[in-house]
Amino acid sequence: MIKIGIVGGTGYTGVELLRLLALHEDAEVVAITSRAESGRRLDDLYPNLRGYYDLAFTEPDVARLAACDVVFFATPHNVAMNLVPELLAAGARVIDLSADYRIRDAELWSRWYGEPHASPDVLPQAVYGLPELNREQIASASLVACPGCYPTSVQLGLIPLLARGLVDTQHLIASAASGASGAGRQAKVDNLLSEVADSFKAYGVSGHRHLPEIEQGLADVAGCPVQLTFVPHLLPMIRGIHATLFARLVDMSVDLQALYEEWYAEEPFVDVLPAGMFPQTRTVKGANRCQIGLQVPQGRDTVVVMSTIDNLVKGASGQAVQNMNIMLGLPEDRGLQQVGLLP
Amino acid sequence: MIKIGIVGGTGYTGVELLRLLALHEDAEVVAITSRAESGRRLDDLYPNLRGYYDLAFTEPDVARLAACDVVFFATPHNVAMNLVPELLAAGARVIDLSADYRIRDAELWSRWYGEPHASPDVLPQAVYGLPELNREQIASASLVACPGCYPTSVQLGLIPLLARGLVDTQHLIASAASGASGAGRQAKVDNLLSEVADSFKAYGVSGHRHLPEIEQGLADVAGCPVQLTFVPHLLPMIRGIHATLFARLVDMSVDLQALYEEWYAEEPFVDVLPAGMFPQTRTVKGANRCQIGLQVPQGRDTVVVMSTIDNLVKGASGQAVQNMNIMLGLPEDRGLQQVGLLP
Amino acid sequence: MIKIGIVGGTGYTGVELLRLLALHEDAEVVAITSRAESGRRLDDLYPNLRGYYDLAFTEPDVARLAACDVVFFATPHNVAMNLVPELLAAGARVIDLSADYRIRDAELWSRWYGEPHASPDVLPQAVYGLPELNREQIASASLVACPGCYPTSVQLGLIPLLARGLVDTQHLIASAASGASGAGRQAKVDNLLSEVADSFKAYGVSGHRHLPEIEQGLADVAGCPVQLTFVPHLLPMIRGIHATLFARLVDMSVDLQALYEEWYAEEPFVDVLPAGMFPQTRTVKGANRCQIGLQVPQGRDTVVVMSTIDNLVKGASGQAVQNMNIMLGLPEDRGLQQVGLLP
Amino acid sequence: MIKIGIVGGTGYTGVELLRLLALHEDAEVVAITSRAESGRRLDDLYPNLRGYYDLAFTEPDVARLAACDVVFFATPHNVAMNLVPELLAAGARVIDLSADYRIRDAELWSRWYGEPHASPDVLPQAVYGLPELNREQIASASLVACPGCYPTSVQLGLIPLLARGLVDTQHLIASAASGASGAGRQAKVDNLLSEVADSFKAYGVSGHRHLPEIEQGLADVAGCPVQLTFVPHLLPMIRGIHATLFARLVDMSVDLQALYEEWYAEEPFVDVLPAGMFPQTRTVKGANRCQIGLQVPQGRDTVVVMSTIDNLVKGASGQAVQNMNIMLGLPEDRGLQQVGLLP
Repeated sequence: MIKIGIVGGTGYTGVELLRLLALHEDAEVVAITSRAESGRRLDDLYPNLRGYYDLAFTEPDVARLAACDVVFFATPHNVAMNLVPELLAAGARVIDLSADYRIRDAELWSRWYGEPHASPDVLPQAVYGLPELNREQIASASLVACPGCYPTSVQLGLIPLLARGLVDTQHLIASAASGASGAGRQAKVDNLLSEVADSFKAYGVSGHRHLPEIEQGLADVAGCPVQLTFVPHLLPMIRGIHATLFARLVDMSVDLQALYEEWYAEEPFVDVLPAGMFPQTRTVKGANRCQIGLQVPQGRDTVVVMSTIDNLVKGASGQAVQNMNIMLGLPEDRGLQQVGLLP
Repeated sequence: MIKIGIVGGTGYTGVELLRLLALHEDAEVVAITSRAESGRRLDDLYPNLRGYYDLAFTEPDVARLAACDVVFFATPHNVAMNLVPELLAAGARVIDLSADYRIRDAELWSRWYGEPHASPDVLPQAVYGLPELNREQIASASLVACPGCYPTSVQLGLIPLLARGLVDTQHLIASAASGASGAGRQAKVDNLLSEVADSFKAYGVSGHRHLPEIEQGLADVAGCPVQLTFVPHLLPMIRGIHATLFARLVDMSVDLQALYEEWYAEEPFVDVLPAGMFPQTRTVKGANRCQIGLQVPQGRDTVVVMSTIDNLVKGASGQAVQNMNIMLGLPEDRGLQQVGLLP
Repeated sequence: MIKIGIVGGTGYTGVELLRLLALHEDAEVVAITSRAESGRRLDDLYPNLRGYYDLAFTEPDVARLAACDVVFFATPHNVAMNLVPELLAAGARVIDLSADYRIRDAELWSRWYGEPHASPDVLPQAVYGLPELNREQIASASLVACPGCYPTSVQLGLIPLLARGLVDTQHLIASAASGASGAGRQAKVDNLLSEVADSFKAYGVSGHRHLPEIEQGLADVAGCPVQLTFVPHLLPMIRGIHATLFARLVDMSVDLQALYEEWYAEEPFVDVLPAGMFPQTRTVKGANRCQIGLQVPQGRDTVVVMSTIDNLVKGASGQAVQNMNIMLGLPEDRGLQQVGLLP
Repeated sequence: MIKIGIVGGTGYTGVELLRLLALHEDAEVVAITSRAESGRRLDDLYPNLRGYYDLAFTEPDVARLAACDVVFFATPHNVAMNLVPELLAAGARVIDLSADYRIRDAELWSRWYGEPHASPDVLPQAVYGLPELNREQIASASLVACPGCYPTSVQLGLIPLLARGLVDTQHLIASAASGASGAGRQAKVDNLLSEVADSFKAYGVSGHRHLPEIEQGLADVAGCPVQLTFVPHLLPMIRGIHATLFARLVDMSVDLQALYEEWYAEEPFVDVLPAGMFPQTRTVKGANRCQIGLQVPQGRDTVVVMSTIDNLVKGASGQAVQNMNIMLGLPEDRGLQQVGLLP
């Protein structure tokens, strides 16, 4: 039985890890930390977990965490980068759901996150945990940086086009929308039901922190720098990301539907929909799955790709468990077979 | 492997059965019928099922259904009562999610459903499928009538009080609320998002069809006729039932919290919350679970019991699978271990 | 032109006052205070007000407020009771939307609000601002305490029954539900969209602060103490209150539909629906209106009354403007003619 | 008093016309037709209108309608084009909220709507009712074709850029999202709450009927044909359209914020937000207003314009009343002063 530690288990990615790991046959959560809720039972905070865990939150304790086989960080940025070096030194393998190790360039990270990186020495060890790109490196990694939710949906939607050099890489557009759980479980007026229900808005238009992460990943695939205009929007609902991606085709000779189907044919968690079918966030709700549809409207030279995930599953905790399975040599879908909850 | 047939698989209880059975280790859906969608692949209608089923809807065919070990009816009322006699005669075991066999008295049924019962002869064979009341009879039944969604939540909430004779049985009150999926997947203006989102209303105040079913069940428990004022309400959301139950105590000497905890101590799918904690529909979303909390406000003589379920799971398809497991001698929670999807 | 001051204009009752007063022909808002947002333009915080006000929030300043004809308190409890005495002394008339002056008995208030009342001497001057009960006293009042949102809907729904002595006054039941705006615009995890959307729950079951207020008002009408079991619930939407009221009839000889229609025949803001029609919160959204429907199910001895309001309008700011109109001798519906926003 | 007739008053644009006209000082609705609801009182179908109208739906009757000063068509497409010629001949002025007269080219119309146009002779008389473009022609028109909801938001968002020749006209992108009321009040499974709440999806990606209308309007402004990639999405809420518009700048020397502010400075119903502020659908809910924000992210060569309206107000019935006011020489904001309902 693999021993799991979770740092920061009170947020939405934390409770989602707990939901997924509750039914994972090979893993057992043995430690879960929270300064604010130390001493409180998990199932008191999250009654959906009643009967699945007999555990309470504890103060973070490096020794106890280091005794785990795998430690997940389900924390806001700026926590993992301070604790991870010690855990790695103690021999633990770490899966970080936060932004701390997603960007390879410490200076670029620092510009977007407004503070110096606390462990730039460790950055080179970090593997970017998008299995569809980096499965092999993940298998042997000691530190995996799970992609952000928007970056997961946007990259999976654009990779085949960029890898094959079919589009203008300097004018990519991503108009994406997320449920409110993406903003986390923090007491902010901006995320009150009365502020965000029954409304829709763009935010972060001048520059969202996921932009450099996406551009880094897409540049790797394209083999050259790319420029993306990225506009996230806030949906009046809890879970789900829908990215609508626009790119100008520089080569119109390729059957894009066939390309996507072949590209992802062997991927267990990327599902290219048949031609003419487009994804909905509800069909992946609660499931570790990215569904993709595409269209070239009016036969013009702009391709539209639609890519949906559940931001808390394939966009966070599900992908983290997928990475864990890869790291430990388990079947990649262990604990991740949930069917989307529809309706 | 148990062979499963489903009649009427295009509605919400149908797709929910498919979600739950997709991961059931001992059961395989081999036939699913729909006149309207005959020939269409399941996963074309329900893309959340892509990868789980390689099946298409077919015209209802008694011979094919009779070859199944278990046949579920996930139909509106008035379908099962016409087909079930033939299926029983052919040796199939039937689990009916509709209202056709819930009320023992054919005449009473007929008064509330506005037409004669089509197979009153079969009624005596039907076992009312509330496992917490009738587990033994269910085990040997050939025909199980699954309770309605409101009746499940209301009965589970009131049974201990009535069984112990603690309340006035002639003035019970149930103020209950349901998500819109309870109204089914039918093209009606009344259930459009623009009609029911962002609003709340009572309906069926003069008399809802679940009233006689609830009164029948509670009378059995109480050992005498009961009178319930039942007011259902429509919630602006998809899944979940919350019943707020009021009863006047005629005996105030009993520790009600302890009573409820003991009463349901061995029940795998009824969870009595600790004193002072009250249930939310979100903590049972997607799970086959009833959560119950109770309070006697101001120390007066009225007890308030709150009982929540997911109407599509413990209120329909989950309970149906639970009944199947009991009928077949399988572990009762087989295929039903999903954790509630929160947030 | 009547000069209006508003204390605490950043909350939901504040912005709703501003929406209603923007089109009020006889009133002009000249001062609006907020410590937190002092200096910020109203329409920067609330862009729906762009073009209607050329005002910024200011620090609370008694002199400036005292120069107004009418001062509204749109604050949490515990603010008005400290400032009102000074304003009254300076000659201003005050309309308090908070709870500070709703309960006549300072000790009872103190028990429910957990602190001593700051100005018990002023309490006797306060008129409870439910126009349907106290129109005359309101007209001459210098201090009006606007009812809470639940108390408005529950009292309007029960008054005719109690005034006529038709029901058991010791076992009244109110199962009510409110949109999340009732919890105000405060940074609390409990009111995040991700916590309360897509769910329904009871809260405050052991005792909600609106209980003593309702029992005080109903006792006045009944001429004797009453006992109410009051269970509020939280709806996954922004605006609206629906109260479902249950009472046992001790006199079944009265035509209740006719009674209600007559009782409220002259009331401009209470609308008794025709027999068989029941209210929905959406039909009063944005309107200063209470809609009421009633039924005696199955001809038994329990009457069910359903009463709906928009908690921010007839349950707060609309009723406050209605009170202002009465106090100033204006037509009672001045500024309050908005039609409910449906769909 | 202007006499108003409404054809097809049972849909959402119909009830919204009634809401707005209820408080219009110069207009009176004297006839409202519906085949399906003939004989039923308006306020029985729409209880928010109780007390505002003493009217019932009637069968369509040309003579009765022709006696009105203005006739609104709040019908699906294909109704107005059959009745309008007769009404015009009888001297009525017509404001059509449907699609029948929006596209000047009858053949183009026919290609997108799948049937021949029934009154191509009348098409040249129709004035496209976007007051910000065509105020003068509207004033003297006998037939005004009100723009679609998406076309209103997209055109108002792009007009300044195209009129000034600042962007590549062949690669415009509109990623827009609408509340479900845009789909109308028709009994379709696809618009049930349980289908569209708690989800988000693109639709009509291969070609939406509003595309030719938008391209026609933008081409007029640009002085040349334009190409737009238009992807509409369905929001899990009732009211509101948010268009996120992307265009590649061919001239980066212009201060776009200043351009927009000047362009719309005199427009009563277009509100350009200050730099750095972006619109939300909730700030225009219920109001006849378009709010616009813009940004050039990262100082690159792509401009992003965000444009929001309430699809039922500025996107339909409010704009129709605005057109009526212009046609009749009334103040343009008569009956349209409602403040957005926030929260």
